[in-house]
Amino acid sequence: MATNVSPLAVKLPALPALSGVRMAAAEAGIRYKGRTDVVMMEVPSGSTVAGVFTSNKCPGAPVDWCRASVAGGKARMVIVNAGNANVFTGRAGREACAATAAAAGKLAGCPAKQVFVASTGVIGEVLPHEKLVAILPKLQKNLSEDGWEAAARGIMTTDTFPKASTRTAKIGESEVRISGIAKGSGMIAPDMATMLCFIFTDAKIPADALQAMLKKGCDASFNCTTVDSDTSTSDTVLLIATGQAKHSRIPAAADTATRNRMLADFARALNEVLLDLALQVIRDGEGAQKLVKIDVTGAVNARSAKRIAMTVANSPLVKTAIAGEDANWGRIVMAVGKAGEPADRDKLSIGVGGVWMAKDGGVIPGYDEAPVVEHMKGQEVEIAIDLGLGRGKATVWTCDLTHGYIDINGSYRS
Amino acid sequence: MATNVSPLAVKLPALPALSGVRMAAAEAGIRYKGRTDVVMMEVPSGSTVAGVFTSNKCPGAPVDWCRASVAGGKARMVIVNAGNANVFTGRAGREACAATAAAAGKLAGCPAKQVFVASTGVIGEVLPHEKLVAILPKLQKNLSEDGWEAAARGIMTTDTFPKASTRTAKIGESEVRISGIAKGSGMIAPDMATMLCFIFTDAKIPADALQAMLKKGCDASFNCTTVDSDTSTSDTVLLIATGQAKHSRIPAAADTATRNRMLADFARALNEVLLDLALQVIRDGEGAQKLVKIDVTGAVNARSAKRIAMTVANSPLVKTAIAGEDANWGRIVMAVGKAGEPADRDKLSIGVGGVWMAKDGGVIPGYDEAPVVEHMKGQEVEIAIDLGLGRGKATVWTCDLTHGYIDINGSYRS
Repeated sequence: MATNVSPLAVKLPALPALSGVRMAAAEAGIRYKGRTDVVMMEVPSGSTVAGVFTSNKCPGAPVDWCRASVAGGKARMVIVNAGNANVFTGRAGREACAATAAAAGKLAGCPAKQVFVASTGVIGEVLPHEKLVAILPKLQKNLSEDGWEAAARGIMTTDTFPKASTRTAKIGESEVRISGIAKGSGMIAPDMATMLCFIFTDAKIPADALQAMLKKGCDASFNCTTVDSDTSTSDTVLLIATGQAKHSRIPAAADTATRNRMLADFARALNEVLLDLALQVIRDGEGAQKLVKIDVTGAVNARSAKRIAMTVANSPLVKTAIAGEDANWGRIVMAVGKAGEPADRDKLSIGVGGVWMAKDGGVIPGYDEAPVVEHMKGQEVEIAIDLGLGRGKATVWTCDLTHGYIDINGSYRS
Repeated sequence: MATNVSPLAVKLPALPALSGVRMAAAEAGIRYKGRTDVVMMEVPSGSTVAGVFTSNKCPGAPVDWCRASVAGGKARMVIVNAGNANVFTGRAGREACAATAAAAGKLAGCPAKQVFVASTGVIGEVLPHEKLVAILPKLQKNLSEDGWEAAARGIMTTDTFPKASTRTAKIGESEVRISGIAKGSGMIAPDMATMLCFIFTDAKIPADALQAMLKKGCDASFNCTTVDSDTSTSDTVLLIATGQAKHSRIPAAADTATRNRMLADFARALNEVLLDLALQVIRDGEGAQKLVKIDVTGAVNARSAKRIAMTVANSPLVKTAIAGEDANWGRIVMAVGKAGEPADRDKLSIGVGGVWMAKDGGVIPGYDEAPVVEHMKGQEVEIAIDLGLGRGKATVWTCDLTHGYIDINGSYRS
């Protein structure tokens, strides 16, 4: 298990209280010893909710539970545990979700379906939910508007630092806040990146509007990141709006134009929070020493650009070259070519750190290697790929592939 | 660069002379020092040829050259160099192929298009083909029917052992021989696995029949293997028939039934040679400590089964678990689910080393862990996945992901 903090870690931002949102963490001893591993997050009655979940065809029981519950559009509580993912646990897994939600709902005074559950950790071991249920009253007693950091720490698994982000946005003349926490480090690949993320706002926004903004925001953030191409069975992003802030009323879905105009700044801030958290997950990628940004331009369309960018981002040979601080553009050419998308070797250009190294099917004679070498030594590496075919573009983020990844994952269960 | 021989290495088989086939290796100093790096392989006038090449959209100049030449169906010579792949080298790359083929053709007394060229090594550096051309006369002088081992060694890059395979087959009452050599270790993924492979037979077989058999054989061997999911720009498999053996005449394509019946045993032996060489490449996978066989059954069809098997084979989390000798079937569930193919979590079964560990969406209570633990410690690991949906099945091979892979690829160019 990793014990050193990622060299790419960022400091936890100050998280002001968000009206109506209270959190607490506790030790239930589900897997880890000597650390918190269960988190309760409570919001007021009437809060709306949206969710985006893993595309993995073998999702965990908590994902099934949340998918069904999010259809109701209302949330009162979120219960998260770390150390056991409650995935591939059959009937026992479903019962664990139902029992936890029922017990939490009883405490909160709400139907079980307004309780959202999420689990992260080892797959295939039955979740001892009685430990979870037993600690719920203590968690409820400790709920606090200052519980954000405790919650961010309580949901970590192989993460080496807690992750949070906060922004403000204007709705009409009023200011609202959006704050979120996330966890994730390995088993990170698009749709969704393997992680849990819980975002709250004091704005009052209908569930369908939240859902549309969350989906769009995730596509431009978490779904543009990859650590290891492995898509988790547990990925969950929830966005909950408490409606405690005073602002002009968001109209019903029928008046889409007004709604979109009123929520434009909110969507901007939400996207910033999502991207900030997504990049923090990549910065904590298992074994990561470098954050890598891949810009693809000139593809036949945006979808093709994203596929090519993701193929480069997931190439073990590109990732190990970056770990070795080698601007090996030949491997980038290989990865572009293997994506299966339209590409013409003789129109392809590759750049690193702002310097074009290869163009029109060959190396650029006498390009200045010094700034490239310097750039590769840094913690943030930028790769530019121009296909020279059309106007499709995409940006994705990944990290390098190092001995640390093997260390962490070659002995995870032992 | 790796210096230790793979623990999974197999001994080079004895390779009897194959009538009409002569080989030689020499030091041209293209990249490596103190070892052979150029190989010449000569066959008699009238030899027929088939080829299968990389699906990478950015192929090397030698692949373009061979694709064009194989259309002619005739071969006299193959020239291979190691250390420089002649990929993404623009006009200089095309000129290198043409100049090498022209010079070799002049020596052999054949058109340049009957000379096949292949290159493997670093991408993006101009191939100093004048060194190649300069050494051709010496290579020709040293051609020998005993040159197989020298050739197998001369085409190696990060390979830790030379790879060859030989079988006999019956055509009518006559015995013919099929022998081949291959190289490959990293940048290995299907269509084609990243490698070069040259197979010869003394049988007399029309080029179109060779091509059909080679395509089918590669689909069931090289295209079912992966080291790192990275598809090379240089993958090339050539099959050359010298026609020196005496056997009943293979009829023209029109009489497909007779032709297929006469060549059935040849195809069987060819498939064995191809699979033997493909598995040797996986056994020499960069950093490999274990050879992994993945059997998928019960998929909706064969294509779906192969995609699922390949997704499991390419999952970094599955591969690192195997390196850690951890029968982590939870990660296998994850990889099955991320393949995007039809899968039902609650019908899925996972087994390792002949023991079913998980079934119908959950772990099998009280399954015998001892033989699984023992199996994981061995050099050959077998994973069984049953989808429980249909009759589609596939088998693929890979290796584990270890520190050795990072060592080799984090500093390849330095």
